[in-house]
Amino acid sequence: MRLDAAALHDMVARILARAGLSAENAAVVARVVVAAEQDGTASHGLFRLPGYLATLRSGWVDGHAVPTVTQVAPTLLLADGCNGFAQVALAAARDRLSEMARAQGMAALCTSNAHHFAALWPDVEPFARAGFVALTVINTRSHIVVFGGRRKVLGTNPMAFACPRGDGPPLVWDQAASVRSQGEVLRARRAGRAVPPGVGVDAAGQPTEDPGAILDGGALLPFGGHKGAGIALMIEVLAAALTGGRFGFEDRSAAYPGAQTSNAGQFVLLIDPSRTAGTGFSARIETLVAALREAGSERLPADARHSRRLAARDGIEIADSVHAELLAMLQAHQ
Amino acid sequence: MRLDAAALHDMVARILARAGLSAENAAVVARVVVAAEQDGTASHGLFRLPGYLATLRSGWVDGHAVPTVTQVAPTLLLADGCNGFAQVALAAARDRLSEMARAQGMAALCTSNAHHFAALWPDVEPFARAGFVALTVINTRSHIVVFGGRRKVLGTNPMAFACPRGDGPPLVWDQAASVRSQGEVLRARRAGRAVPPGVGVDAAGQPTEDPGAILDGGALLPFGGHKGAGIALMIEVLAAALTGGRFGFEDRSAAYPGAQTSNAGQFVLLIDPSRTAGTGFSARIETLVAALREAGSERLPADARHSRRLAARDGIEIADSVHAELLAMLQAHQ
Repeated sequence: MRLDAAALHDMVARILARAGLSAENAAVVARVVVAAEQDGTASHGLFRLPGYLATLRSGWVDGHAVPTVTQVAPTLLLADGCNGFAQVALAAARDRLSEMARAQGMAALCTSNAHHFAALWPDVEPFARAGFVALTVINTRSHIVVFGGRRKVLGTNPMAFACPRGDGPPLVWDQAASVRSQGEVLRARRAGRAVPPGVGVDAAGQPTEDPGAILDGGALLPFGGHKGAGIALMIEVLAAALTGGRFGFEDRSAAYPGAQTSNAGQFVLLIDPSRTAGTGFSARIETLVAALREAGSERLPADARHSRRLAARDGIEIADSVHAELLAMLQAHQ
Repeated sequence: MRLDAAALHDMVARILARAGLSAENAAVVARVVVAAEQDGTASHGLFRLPGYLATLRSGWVDGHAVPTVTQVAPTLLLADGCNGFAQVALAAARDRLSEMARAQGMAALCTSNAHHFAALWPDVEPFARAGFVALTVINTRSHIVVFGGRRKVLGTNPMAFACPRGDGPPLVWDQAASVRSQGEVLRARRAGRAVPPGVGVDAAGQPTEDPGAILDGGALLPFGGHKGAGIALMIEVLAAALTGGRFGFEDRSAAYPGAQTSNAGQFVLLIDPSRTAGTGFSARIETLVAALREAGSERLPADARHSRRLAARDGIEIADSVHAELLAMLQAHQ
């Protein structure tokens, strides 16, 4: 069946509100869940709802958090997520962050004490639509082994980047520092599928294609070996140390059975390219995109998502079984 | 034989000055060449001198460039490298950039029309010693094929990151967006060694372990597949589009036989962590480093370089053949 985005948003927001989110927070979180589903980012769409609900039930996240946002320097906003979802802190800081970046040329938001359980691209794409070059990173619970270590320390630590183009939607990418995201491995386990070689190791540090062995005591591997590890390390510094937040290995979610998120941090950087490159910036990005297409890169980052978004203009396709699950989630919390 | 760093610097600066660099510019470039040699970054040390000389002889770089630095926003410096080396522009901007970052919380330098032929970590490590979190990226000539393309478009586009630690030298890494840097492949060709599988493709797009086939019409591959490609793409945006500089595929060095550099751009970002994380920032980095060591990561990024630097306190070990080559270079330009 097909549901239009507004109807799906309403349904997801009601599910989240009944599970313990304030109406305001439910609306913010529902937006990113629906955006991922609409763009076909299956691992971060409706698939994540049971994780949100289990986490809320566990008492690990404060669904009614009202984040505080403080300007600590002309370019820096410091947000305390107050143990709520990171998107709520970003929503609270968004307008001020944009104004600061316009006035100063750059601005950054440093959020700590917040949970991020969604795709990361929805956090930056709107800034690129507003003309900014935007970069964000978050740290997560420990998931990957790096630099010859025996135990996981760093998170899957995703990064998302976006910049405006001359026409069409912004150039956007969003990628975990692991070969595959935790969400993808979770989906493989749920579907009873193996993961490709090189994705992770088991509890003994041996390569495995069994998602369960990776998730239960094993670890994910960084993309590109020590280079992906370098990226993951930088993100741990920016998202946790710089924001005053927790490192992934300091996570305490294990004390809350059912919790699937980490209380961690997020760093969001905005740059106003009109200050350095004038009005021609987005035309230059078009030149870059054209060169890549001409060299045979038919599918650039976000191309697939944007096509699916177009295809979902008249409604987001939802399997009947998923719709039934959504209805069950609504019932369960009534 | 062993030469002390000052003596080697003097020798390298004289070679560069005789090859066409102004005394000021020669001193700046010699510093990064010697720093790489001292830290054992062989592919970016004295090994690069013939490339500098060939490039200067070709007329492609202006050895007497006096870069201009303009503040275009409270946080943004725009530098025109005036077709000289990028390190000269950075040296001209360094003090002002630091002052701006202290005052505003963040600051960035956007350099265009400049050549970068050195290791990248020497550009950020001093800022980390001064207490900043520092990130820099440069774009290079087209070297890698990405996103299913048939021809190379993006550069090897290195990135370097540094942040202060509680004690000891800063945490620093420096890595190309390709599996191996162009410099490493050049060295393999010079040494008659094959490169590992996965490093590059030949002119027909087929995997090859022959460095010559990669360098002559072939291409390098990004680290970690499409994720490294995403990093390379972001760097092309930050270093070229944002700075008003040239993309790698717009390089015109082919018109200057012998030229080995690209006229491209550099982006340098400084963040003052004391504004967001207070005085405890470097202690937090120590906590992160300790966690990695405890998990078995005996060798973190820059550890090997820093040990070699310590070992070179009483002199940098130079093979007799290399010393003879240096003397020959001095003679050739007298």
